[in-house]
Amino acid sequence: MKFNLTKTDKNSKARTGELITDRGTIQTPIFMPVGTQGSVKGINQQELSEKIKAQIILANTYHIYLRPGIEVIKQAGGIHKFINWEKPMLTDSGGFQVFSLSDIRKINDEGVEFRSHIDGSKLFFTPENVIDTQRTIGADIIMAFDECTPFPCEYDYAKKSLTLTHSWLKRCIHRFNETEPEYEKQQSFFPIVQGSVYKDLRAESAKFIADQHCEGNAIGGLSVGEPAEMMYEMTELVCDILPKEKPRYLMGVGTPENILECISLGIDMFDCVMPTRNARHGFLFTSQGIINIKNEKWKFDNSAIDEIFTPDYSKAYLKHLIKCNEMLGMSIASIQNLSFYMWLVNEARNKINEGVFTSWKKEILEKITRRL
Amino acid sequence: MKFNLTKTDKNSKARTGELITDRGTIQTPIFMPVGTQGSVKGINQQELSEKIKAQIILANTYHIYLRPGIEVIKQAGGIHKFINWEKPMLTDSGGFQVFSLSDIRKINDEGVEFRSHIDGSKLFFTPENVIDTQRTIGADIIMAFDECTPFPCEYDYAKKSLTLTHSWLKRCIHRFNETEPEYEKQQSFFPIVQGSVYKDLRAESAKFIADQHCEGNAIGGLSVGEPAEMMYEMTELVCDILPKEKPRYLMGVGTPENILECISLGIDMFDCVMPTRNARHGFLFTSQGIINIKNEKWKFDNSAIDEIFTPDYSKAYLKHLIKCNEMLGMSIASIQNLSFYMWLVNEARNKINEGVFTSWKKEILEKITRRL
Repeated sequence: MKFNLTKTDKNSKARTGELITDRGTIQTPIFMPVGTQGSVKGINQQELSEKIKAQIILANTYHIYLRPGIEVIKQAGGIHKFINWEKPMLTDSGGFQVFSLSDIRKINDEGVEFRSHIDGSKLFFTPENVIDTQRTIGADIIMAFDECTPFPCEYDYAKKSLTLTHSWLKRCIHRFNETEPEYEKQQSFFPIVQGSVYKDLRAESAKFIADQHCEGNAIGGLSVGEPAEMMYEMTELVCDILPKEKPRYLMGVGTPENILECISLGIDMFDCVMPTRNARHGFLFTSQGIINIKNEKWKFDNSAIDEIFTPDYSKAYLKHLIKCNEMLGMSIASIQNLSFYMWLVNEARNKINEGVFTSWKKEILEKITRRL
Repeated sequence: MKFNLTKTDKNSKARTGELITDRGTIQTPIFMPVGTQGSVKGINQQELSEKIKAQIILANTYHIYLRPGIEVIKQAGGIHKFINWEKPMLTDSGGFQVFSLSDIRKINDEGVEFRSHIDGSKLFFTPENVIDTQRTIGADIIMAFDECTPFPCEYDYAKKSLTLTHSWLKRCIHRFNETEPEYEKQQSFFPIVQGSVYKDLRAESAKFIADQHCEGNAIGGLSVGEPAEMMYEMTELVCDILPKEKPRYLMGVGTPENILECISLGIDMFDCVMPTRNARHGFLFTSQGIINIKNEKWKFDNSAIDEIFTPDYSKAYLKHLIKCNEMLGMSIASIQNLSFYMWLVNEARNKINEGVFTSWKKEILEKITRRL
């Protein structure tokens, strides 16, 4: 992997770049659609590529490990072949899901013993086996196994957890370095900054992570319920410490506004389930503002959902489909929201390159956060 | 509407033809995918047209009447514009759904009073208002409002019901003739033969229907639980009475085998929810045989689901998606099954035209009914 910084904004810390992987080049800042179980919900791979123009997608190690299982992925020749997706993929480490979805049985220095949220079977994740799993999945970008602290989180717990996360990180890196890439493609490793909402812990973690000299760096443990201002504060603090010449990935963020604000703080990569999850409930992001398509006001509205992204279907039709729980409604709405997110980061990129990012951000936020 | 009979098979009563409508020509025999609420479940209109190559689709008057409601369709300029589908559409009359889905409150000569299965509201369908509704929906083919008898059904009830259905038919035709087509496109009316599984009633009904000289004729009340042989017997009896020069539509049928058998008895048009419903449960029709994709044997099978219809995705991936209840799984499986049905009727058409239908039918049935 190679990261070329193209341009840095004069009025903010926003920057553009390109991330060159063996499966293609990613233009940053970028948004990565989430394909938890190896499918971006409601969308097929052709739509993902051609309509949404996704450059990289994410899958969840925890989910893929449970179903279909790693042996299935291995025999398919990696996840790209398994799901028929040729562009880059990133896998999270499962840390977030282990702590949020499963019954945790025991957490110790060695790793985490937990029960599957599907069948209750007992499993044990360690930094080493999580790296091995991601190698076998065949992710282009592999994430460190960390503990993602909740919000709120006591200072003492956050500090203790950070120590564990850092010790696991050293083991992740060791394992990553002693193993070979799978499927004849380069795989890169990103460590994750933790530290909850405590400045000193975040600073300590960012320095520790920076010192590992990995190919890219991530910020985790944010967008877990804390106020947006607190998230921005932590993001800024961490970005200022992380090396400029490496891509920075803010995990699990966020709203369109969160994304633009964090781009201005120096973030290059984002992922979030919000566009697809909101879509399934009828909440749309459009180039003209926010739409709750279940609202009665759209009942007779035969205008396109969005002239740019979904010109083929009307608001009235989408309202009907969502109200009737038709899969097509969820699919159209997901295409709309993901297309919007991809458009937003691409526009941000263009505006940074043109040197007008800050003024554009103010204008576009007024427009796209309106409730229609 | 114009129906041109192209060829009649020498060894069976199978025939090919073309049904010319204001929205395009339909090659018969044809299968019509079912879009109950204005959407073929799990599939978008582009896939329906380009991948599945549907020539005509069906929508359900009862469902559309309840949601989104007729006023929405009217203000959209008809159902074709509402759902963005330019090819022909057929609407059933709602008779089947009124009798199968709703709490029937009262059935009398005038019509049926029933309660919506959605919100329990009280509604009244008559032959006249059902024709009006289908006019407003903008269907290219409008169906008679009938009583669809269940199976089993006592002879006396079937006879009494038939009298009602025939009296309603006269009123449907009267209303159809005194009203104008909507949205500047021709609309055609098809009456429906009933009579349960009783030969004399079926013969009486077929004669009555033939005497109305409508543009096409339908057979209802079959595939409701009776043995297949009984369905074939009734279909043959009715086909022999219905005029040769008009298209014959067998409602709600059926399996691939049912369809080929009924083509050989002289049926031109079919609809059924089986391909999409089975798909959602992981039962696939393929060019090589029947697949239950949930079966463990497919877990590591990286071959294409079907080289002809769904070459982009493997059996292992589809098994995973269906097992995880991912929408994409249901969508891929639905594309597979509908593509198969469309291929089957198209092949039947080719073989009739080539004069080898009967021998081909035997061979292909052996192949496609195998359990893989």
